[in-house]
Amino acid sequence: MTKIIRPTLVVDKKVCLQNIERMAKKAANLNLRFRPHFKTHQSAKIGEWFRLYGIEAITVSSVQMAEYFAANGWKDITVAFPVNILEIDNINRLASEIKLGLLVENIEAAGFLAKHILFPVDVWIKIDTGNNRTGIDPNDYVHIETLIQNLTEGKNLTFKGFLTHSGHTYSAHSTDEIFNRHFDALLKLKFLKQRLSNQFPDIEISMGDTPAATLCTNFNSVDEIRPGNFVFYDLMQQNLGVCSFDDIAVKMVCPVVAKHVLRNEIVIHGGAVHFSKDSITNIDGKEMFGRIIITQNGEKQMLDQMNYLSKLSQEHGILKVAHNQFKNFNVGDLVEIIPVHSCLTANLMGHYRTNEGELIEMMPRF
Amino acid sequence: MTKIIRPTLVVDKKVCLQNIERMAKKAANLNLRFRPHFKTHQSAKIGEWFRLYGIEAITVSSVQMAEYFAANGWKDITVAFPVNILEIDNINRLASEIKLGLLVENIEAAGFLAKHILFPVDVWIKIDTGNNRTGIDPNDYVHIETLIQNLTEGKNLTFKGFLTHSGHTYSAHSTDEIFNRHFDALLKLKFLKQRLSNQFPDIEISMGDTPAATLCTNFNSVDEIRPGNFVFYDLMQQNLGVCSFDDIAVKMVCPVVAKHVLRNEIVIHGGAVHFSKDSITNIDGKEMFGRIIITQNGEKQMLDQMNYLSKLSQEHGILKVAHNQFKNFNVGDLVEIIPVHSCLTANLMGHYRTNEGELIEMMPRF
Repeated sequence: MTKIIRPTLVVDKKVCLQNIERMAKKAANLNLRFRPHFKTHQSAKIGEWFRLYGIEAITVSSVQMAEYFAANGWKDITVAFPVNILEIDNINRLASEIKLGLLVENIEAAGFLAKHILFPVDVWIKIDTGNNRTGIDPNDYVHIETLIQNLTEGKNLTFKGFLTHSGHTYSAHSTDEIFNRHFDALLKLKFLKQRLSNQFPDIEISMGDTPAATLCTNFNSVDEIRPGNFVFYDLMQQNLGVCSFDDIAVKMVCPVVAKHVLRNEIVIHGGAVHFSKDSITNIDGKEMFGRIIITQNGEKQMLDQMNYLSKLSQEHGILKVAHNQFKNFNVGDLVEIIPVHSCLTANLMGHYRTNEGELIEMMPRF
Repeated sequence: MTKIIRPTLVVDKKVCLQNIERMAKKAANLNLRFRPHFKTHQSAKIGEWFRLYGIEAITVSSVQMAEYFAANGWKDITVAFPVNILEIDNINRLASEIKLGLLVENIEAAGFLAKHILFPVDVWIKIDTGNNRTGIDPNDYVHIETLIQNLTEGKNLTFKGFLTHSGHTYSAHSTDEIFNRHFDALLKLKFLKQRLSNQFPDIEISMGDTPAATLCTNFNSVDEIRPGNFVFYDLMQQNLGVCSFDDIAVKMVCPVVAKHVLRNEIVIHGGAVHFSKDSITNIDGKEMFGRIIITQNGEKQMLDQMNYLSKLSQEHGILKVAHNQFKNFNVGDLVEIIPVHSCLTANLMGHYRTNEGELIEMMPRF
């Protein structure tokens, strides 16, 4: 493959395809529409890998990303972010070209859309099932019903159903807690659906973050799932008990540039502009930005948790290593780092290389 | 100006020019070579603004960045990052074209360079004056002298002097502490210079992070300063007491997409992929990712610290606002956010707009 000389995000296509296939099969078995979230990889090329498993509908996190994937042949896209009314011209352009799904969670945006949308779009109401970021409280019937009324007044708007992102599964302390939070979210949406079933017999439920979509099996009454991170997974998901190390499809390959024996530290080229500053807490209570894989005698070896990416500045990364491992790092070596949060790492890097050295481009930044 | 509809990093050219002029004058008054660090803005266009003040020598943080600025007409560039020996071909190419400065801090890289460098380069020895990231302990004479010997054996290498990045000024708890840390670093380098003055009468000292370069006046024995962040400054610098709000030249402009009155929260489009996850601690002990400026009746008003960017996910930002301010935010408004760390924010955004709407491009990602 191409010789790596700089921080490089390497994607293992085989592992990616396995991850996609596993989720696609699970969705098919549970009779769920699989609408993967493409914000993790942001790549037309990796998008094509999903088509191999029959995927035709996708989720994105911005209108800009919808424009990119629409330009790359995707015809059924949900923008899973509250409608930004300032983007109405872009939204109308998209709606004229593809089957577009939008998210509303407030009267202002719903009323604006009803007035200004020029082409048919599906509209989901965002429900806050506990993540407390966006969405309406599922018990706030007045708000929900007013919103639906606003939507049904717009001639191009189809009220599609209820959508949630149970992002609070990411702060779960055990897989049991992931199950509980998913089930709780499911009940809330199911109840809302039933409540409106007379008036709107066809409304749908969309949920399924990566932790729940990977681990849980109860998707009773759910119509579609939208996991994103599962295509790569990462150290955060492994740490949550959602995936194994073998499921992680991206690694950063970084050159060793210095060694500091008194501190048992190795300096790599690979910093905040490559990894992002997202961290998890290591067993020593310290911030961890990645786990380390070294190659010895041609064999790859993942080091234990006493060896980790412990600090990041703009371009520098500091590996804290156990004293007995220190000698295994040399200036000019390449080490592999399993990133904490693959979505943000991929976003920063802006491109990938496959194991075979093939360049995989991503959405341009503007 | 162009209508802003999406998260946009707006640069105030006038404030930038003031910041550059002030630092250039200070350097001239103190008889210091001003070699600004371009990793903050990463932009050929903003680089041109420095030329207005006679700047011809610059600092960058990677070989890739040196290649970008060399391609944009810069002829005297120091790569202030420990030499990555895997990039030797790129280093040789650069060295054949421009006056290149490199950094070494270990025998391996010095020996490798001495053997493989094909064109004349200046080499600085990186000294760790307390930041504990990279560099040699200033008391480790044996290491320093061995390194110098290695360097002087390479026919294309000129041992230029000692360079430090006193990045520990960023963790100072008061401006007094910044003064003390700078002075301590200065003494260490001065002592090293004196120690070698018989053998190397022309060696230089290079230092000057943004906090020290802005606040301190004692640069006795120093030959050049390399601040970078000062071109924009940011909330971190303001919080350290290094600059005033008026000196901050970049703001993120973000659309308001939702309001949650029960939590006194405003949701903006503007998340970790726009700001980076760097934070400072607010007076309430919580993480803060930015301060808020709103426009009321055509007038801009910076809100106090009880109103701030309190959470970031990939695309969402959550503003925690005081109850009495809540009504001043409306869906569809644009708010300005002063970013915590302008270097990482600019790196993520990949481009700027001036107040007049002019597009300013940055270094491509690969």
